[in-house]
Amino acid sequence: MDYVIILYHKILNEELTLSKITTPTVILNFKTYLESSGENALKLAKALENVANESGITMVAAPQTADIFRINDETNIPILAQHIDPISPGGHTGSNLLECLMESGINGTLLNHSEIRMKLADIGYIVKKIRDNDLFSVVCTNNIETSVAAATLNPNFVAVEPPELIGSGIPVSQAEPEIVEGTVAKVKKINKNVEILCGAGISTGEDMKAAMDLGASGVLLASGIILAKDPQSALLDLVSKI
Amino acid sequence: MDYVIILYHKILNEELTLSKITTPTVILNFKTYLESSGENALKLAKALENVANESGITMVAAPQTADIFRINDETNIPILAQHIDPISPGGHTGSNLLECLMESGINGTLLNHSEIRMKLADIGYIVKKIRDNDLFSVVCTNNIETSVAAATLNPNFVAVEPPELIGSGIPVSQAEPEIVEGTVAKVKKINKNVEILCGAGISTGEDMKAAMDLGASGVLLASGIILAKDPQSALLDLVSKI
Amino acid sequence: MDYVIILYHKILNEELTLSKITTPTVILNFKTYLESSGENALKLAKALENVANESGITMVAAPQTADIFRINDETNIPILAQHIDPISPGGHTGSNLLECLMESGINGTLLNHSEIRMKLADIGYIVKKIRDNDLFSVVCTNNIETSVAAATLNPNFVAVEPPELIGSGIPVSQAEPEIVEGTVAKVKKINKNVEILCGAGISTGEDMKAAMDLGASGVLLASGIILAKDPQSALLDLVSKI
Amino acid sequence: MDYVIILYHKILNEELTLSKITTPTVILNFKTYLESSGENALKLAKALENVANESGITMVAAPQTADIFRINDETNIPILAQHIDPISPGGHTGSNLLECLMESGINGTLLNHSEIRMKLADIGYIVKKIRDNDLFSVVCTNNIETSVAAATLNPNFVAVEPPELIGSGIPVSQAEPEIVEGTVAKVKKINKNVEILCGAGISTGEDMKAAMDLGASGVLLASGIILAKDPQSALLDLVSKI
Repeated sequence: MDYVIILYHKILNEELTLSKITTPTVILNFKTYLESSGENALKLAKALENVANESGITMVAAPQTADIFRINDETNIPILAQHIDPISPGGHTGSNLLECLMESGINGTLLNHSEIRMKLADIGYIVKKIRDNDLFSVVCTNNIETSVAAATLNPNFVAVEPPELIGSGIPVSQAEPEIVEGTVAKVKKINKNVEILCGAGISTGEDMKAAMDLGASGVLLASGIILAKDPQSALLDLVSKI
Repeated sequence: MDYVIILYHKILNEELTLSKITTPTVILNFKTYLESSGENALKLAKALENVANESGITMVAAPQTADIFRINDETNIPILAQHIDPISPGGHTGSNLLECLMESGINGTLLNHSEIRMKLADIGYIVKKIRDNDLFSVVCTNNIETSVAAATLNPNFVAVEPPELIGSGIPVSQAEPEIVEGTVAKVKKINKNVEILCGAGISTGEDMKAAMDLGASGVLLASGIILAKDPQSALLDLVSKI
Repeated sequence: MDYVIILYHKILNEELTLSKITTPTVILNFKTYLESSGENALKLAKALENVANESGITMVAAPQTADIFRINDETNIPILAQHIDPISPGGHTGSNLLECLMESGINGTLLNHSEIRMKLADIGYIVKKIRDNDLFSVVCTNNIETSVAAATLNPNFVAVEPPELIGSGIPVSQAEPEIVEGTVAKVKKINKNVEILCGAGISTGEDMKAAMDLGASGVLLASGIILAKDPQSALLDLVSKI
Repeated sequence: MDYVIILYHKILNEELTLSKITTPTVILNFKTYLESSGENALKLAKALENVANESGITMVAAPQTADIFRINDETNIPILAQHIDPISPGGHTGSNLLECLMESGINGTLLNHSEIRMKLADIGYIVKKIRDNDLFSVVCTNNIETSVAAATLNPNFVAVEPPELIGSGIPVSQAEPEIVEGTVAKVKKINKNVEILCGAGISTGEDMKAAMDLGASGVLLASGIILAKDPQSALLDLVSKI
């Protein structure tokens, strides 16, 4: 579990900054809640930073695109985009260009979340572009089969999340532990460089411990933390059992 | 031509700032060029600001989402998003929530650009949400018929752009003047509160003058300015004939 | 209510056949239920034909694409596609070309159903192509505003269906009568050639009568009939009050 | 090369019919050309049948959905859909349900063609559903990496087609032979049950021979045959060198 992924993150094309994303890893997907937008996004990012400092565990923020610049400016935690459009520079009104997001401060991106599933060819394109830029990719998947398919594309992480459990409050590690175990076993067999995250329904220390015990290298969270009365306490509880 | 649109722009839900977008209006769609991303986006926004100050003509920036916060922080020009997803707050990973973009500093948005066409129901939803928030909407359209349909939804502007001329360097005001004239005539008949912008192939002072002579209230620009050797000079030329 | 729409339907580009679609009109959207696929689709089309013959009311089938040829071959009722892709002949693997569907026997098409919403530009393109081929278009919409926008494109019918009532069993004519009345009033004001259909939750004779009383020229049905124990009886009941 | 795939094809859920798709295999994607729609689709299917009978080589038709029933009725060749929507029975207006296409006579389907790319999760869903129904799946891909990812999902065939060569008339077997060879090598390493087809720019006997020499089990064709002056002669030439 002490596997270390080293990220070189080019800021403004001028200098290289070294970020370490160590496992266990906690990634918080901010989605598009009011509780995680604008000023609230900044507060949430600072809660992640506080808990990372206190616990020594890597806490990663995945905020909305409009909030990336400011969070990068005011905190010191790794940042992922929630999605990157499979485009090269040019005429793509309304899309998010990787190069632009890099200047804003991302260290990588989520891809293929169940709320914005991507075409196979586009996942292949962006995972490669992310790797070529020494950034960090987390491909979300819905079952063991698609986890294995995604793993052949060589992302850093696969985050397996049965869609019916997302936002349910029922942790996948309890409801369908065989999916997490099966994903770990089959993904590692095909590509041992890929780490597995456990998503969907995770919010407590028990959930996270169960996920790690099943072989996951970390967790992907969202509403369970964002909508908690006190997100920072919820994050502290999350990492309390490992 | 001295029609004035007054915008109330809520910053951080705390105070109201008054922006005036007067016609003639120049809107620069930054798209996703490297020349209009990150640091370059900021330079381009400052060029717009300089030309606005010099000419007294409203110059509006429509940058990528990741650059909005910074441009709002460092310049004083109106900012449009290039697109807004038709969502309400909640679980919509990878989307851009209007409320989040408002906190970043937008005064409104482009909608339905030919590079990111929208469903009719979604245009209706977002145009209404934009109006309810005292922001500013520009619906792009491809011909007279869809311009009239869009105008019934009561946006502030319709920007008519025959798709085959976008990025062509051939100005619509020259190639198909009857589309601009026809759009002005038929849109004004159905909804006199909607102003018409002329897009596609516009880059010079001649083009802009021709557009205004056909009844347009302004222009929507992109690559002709973004890729110019000296964008600020190109913008000065653009407004030199009116 | 005796308004008559005359359709010329070109079969195999060889001869013209005259179909009359008179109002009141009943359109049954077969969707993709097993109860309305293949052999079952044929049975359902025959039930429509029987009720049309018995009642004198126009009954229209909108089956899945794969079932159109056979239903046209074995029944004598008007047929609509459920959707037509906005393409011209060429390389569009997996799409449905209007010209191909015409050879299979369609008299027109549904467009923009809530389960397959279309882009504004695409609705404009297909409504025009349908009219140019003397076929029949029904544009589905979600509220008064988008109904008016759709009506400016000059389809034969607008079918207004509040999405939250689709498949609910709660008839729009009862739950939100003001939407039907408002759509009739505002659409007729902007384009008196467009007839209004009432969709969402309609299944009984009471529902249909209420819809007609609100100014609709007919109804758009689906699960209420398809999943009925005896669809033919359900259809007979539907038209029993007018 | 004498590898045999046996297909059980359920017709009307009543009886099982045995189809043999032997390699080498020729699949003709009819796309949406007028030359391959309606009556012309039937003629093209009969040309495929004639050449299959004459050459002993399996010739498969992939017509538009509206033409499947008739081609199945009037010819004796295997039929693939061009695409199947990732849905289960229910409310999915405008989609094509697998169960409905099976009743119309398909033996399987193309999936993820470059003109209708699919999401990874949807490819996984449909490939499994196809296999569960003893049908035949051909997943199109754009390069070696996505071919390997697709192969882990266990379809019958992967058809690799560099998008820039599709419809170009330049055969992939000549322009980028390393893509075909690399796909064969890497796919067979990960899943030896998957056969590789060579697509993009193939139209002559030379092209097909080259494809087979690179390890492909057959070819996926389209405009090179459909738009030929005499498609039947073109098909005879195609299989003349093997």
